[in-house]
Amino acid sequence: MTNDIFLRALKREPVPRVPVWLMRQAGRYLPEYRATRERAGSFLALAQTPELACEVTLQPLQRFDLDAAILFSDILTIPDAFGLGLHFVDGEGPRFERRIESVADVDALPSAAVTDKLRYVADAVSLIRNELHGKVPLIGFSGAPWTLFCYMLEGGGSDHYRRAKRFLLDFSGASHRLLGKLADAVTEYLIMQAQAGAQALMLFDSWAGLLAHSHFQEFSQRYLDIICKALKAHPDTRNVPLIVFAKGANTHLENLSRMGCDALGLDWCVHLGEARARTEGRIALQGNLDPNVLYCNPDTIRAEVALVMEQAGPEPGHIFNMGHGMNPDMPLENAGLVVDTVHSYSIAQRARLGLA
Amino acid sequence: MTNDIFLRALKREPVPRVPVWLMRQAGRYLPEYRATRERAGSFLALAQTPELACEVTLQPLQRFDLDAAILFSDILTIPDAFGLGLHFVDGEGPRFERRIESVADVDALPSAAVTDKLRYVADAVSLIRNELHGKVPLIGFSGAPWTLFCYMLEGGGSDHYRRAKRFLLDFSGASHRLLGKLADAVTEYLIMQAQAGAQALMLFDSWAGLLAHSHFQEFSQRYLDIICKALKAHPDTRNVPLIVFAKGANTHLENLSRMGCDALGLDWCVHLGEARARTEGRIALQGNLDPNVLYCNPDTIRAEVALVMEQAGPEPGHIFNMGHGMNPDMPLENAGLVVDTVHSYSIAQRARLGLA
Repeated sequence: MTNDIFLRALKREPVPRVPVWLMRQAGRYLPEYRATRERAGSFLALAQTPELACEVTLQPLQRFDLDAAILFSDILTIPDAFGLGLHFVDGEGPRFERRIESVADVDALPSAAVTDKLRYVADAVSLIRNELHGKVPLIGFSGAPWTLFCYMLEGGGSDHYRRAKRFLLDFSGASHRLLGKLADAVTEYLIMQAQAGAQALMLFDSWAGLLAHSHFQEFSQRYLDIICKALKAHPDTRNVPLIVFAKGANTHLENLSRMGCDALGLDWCVHLGEARARTEGRIALQGNLDPNVLYCNPDTIRAEVALVMEQAGPEPGHIFNMGHGMNPDMPLENAGLVVDTVHSYSIAQRARLGLA
Repeated sequence: MTNDIFLRALKREPVPRVPVWLMRQAGRYLPEYRATRERAGSFLALAQTPELACEVTLQPLQRFDLDAAILFSDILTIPDAFGLGLHFVDGEGPRFERRIESVADVDALPSAAVTDKLRYVADAVSLIRNELHGKVPLIGFSGAPWTLFCYMLEGGGSDHYRRAKRFLLDFSGASHRLLGKLADAVTEYLIMQAQAGAQALMLFDSWAGLLAHSHFQEFSQRYLDIICKALKAHPDTRNVPLIVFAKGANTHLENLSRMGCDALGLDWCVHLGEARARTEGRIALQGNLDPNVLYCNPDTIRAEVALVMEQAGPEPGHIFNMGHGMNPDMPLENAGLVVDTVHSYSIAQRARLGLA
């Protein structure tokens, strides 16, 4: 591989410069993405057509000096494969034709493997891997059980996920059955992506931060843990680095670092140096620039990138990213500025400390 | 005073049962509130007419066995007094006629005391205090500088407060001038409320959780600290218990507990026992039921209240509350169930542990 610093940082090996990629780096802030999306006709057609998914996955790499590619897909492919009918309403985000309304709905979900309905994802992974020609590693990913549960209960996005939370607490038995089913499907799905060529895997628990402390442990982390252990026990994923991003779950870092995953994604509300101390060097850390910094002027962006780098320190095991994904209205030149600043700052930081 | 367990718990003195009140306990979920609001003509007329503010402040006490009353007002009174023109659009929340657009706008804000424009709040406090006849203590409150800054920059509520954050980082000098001006006004305003009869004070930093770790320290906590120190140095507020609720700032509890306030409000994402350990008994803790529990069935509500009580433990210094305010669509009987469960559970807990 031409550039493997992302994979080396995930193993907490020394690297000549801090690797960087940006969540949602293939997205609407890029004009070339909007052109391909237009051609595809719909977001779903774009995500479900391997050639188009490959095209948009590679676009940001042509513009920016990124150290990893991430599969272009959606976190809601699994509920769609369960038959809920995913679709996208422009400007409103994801919607399902059907949502889980009752315990009976939970138990009526197909128990058979859902990954046969997600072959298009494996095909996209294989194609992208081939087209990358070993330039940088390819990350595969999935939504995490609790986050999928939220969307399945609400039928789409929501401010507070009140239906999901109410169901979770009033029908905890059925909730555990659903979360267990989702954990099995996520595990199978990530194994499939690794078998198709993904060189790192990431779990997104976007709504982890909504849960009360003990509910997070019972309904979110329990299933993250099951998935981590299953992937680390499987021959095809044992050696594939796994990143868990439980957004907002910053009071749980100690426990999250003990699940067996290789790295934790972090949002911007935690100090990277403190996170490193709290996780005692067990794992790599990925993050954690406040994404809103990308709306600021270049001097502010440089200063804020430097602040994150200083908080992370020069020890191995840091992958730079934002604490959330790119937004459509972010100036694309600022994405490039972040990437270049991470590289130049980390090279200078290493030289200054005699680590070059 | 007939019932002073709230004040005693704030001083971490033993109490026969855990005191409880609910943020936004005077609000739209109560039909009698909606009737008074209708009569007032507008939310602002309700908040600015001492007799009506007094009426709605007392309403929840007639229904529920609450251990404190909280002044009915709005967190945005100070920006309104600065001349930004607060108004409310039905179903959309607060809006300002003018917002801060530039550094010049910051420096054009009146530097004179703003509390003379907020005499109606002091009048409401005096009236409520009188009408309470010593039944329970009365809490006065204010929005905290960073939260007021957010609204002043956006001109109203916002999902991500991007304008506010961008201004904060790109114009940090002017931002500090504005935050300093707000800290002075908040201090003066809370002193006025104490002089008018408020027996406890609370600072709401509702948007604390939006800030990156170091930005929270620089732009939010710094001003909370200034206010705490000023109130504890003033003869009229020195002995008035002060609660700081920096919502979402759960990675900062250690520092927050060292500001000199008497209690911290906590959202539901932190374990009360862990919060107690991290704050080393320096302060009382107020919280922290997930408000969404109020949409659940009675058995779930009882179990979740018990869980919070067990996590808090029986040591002195716990005031029960939710981690956020009451919503208009919450069933009012569930508010009553929470209050009664806190009392009965804590009496049983004390008996069980031989503390009765």
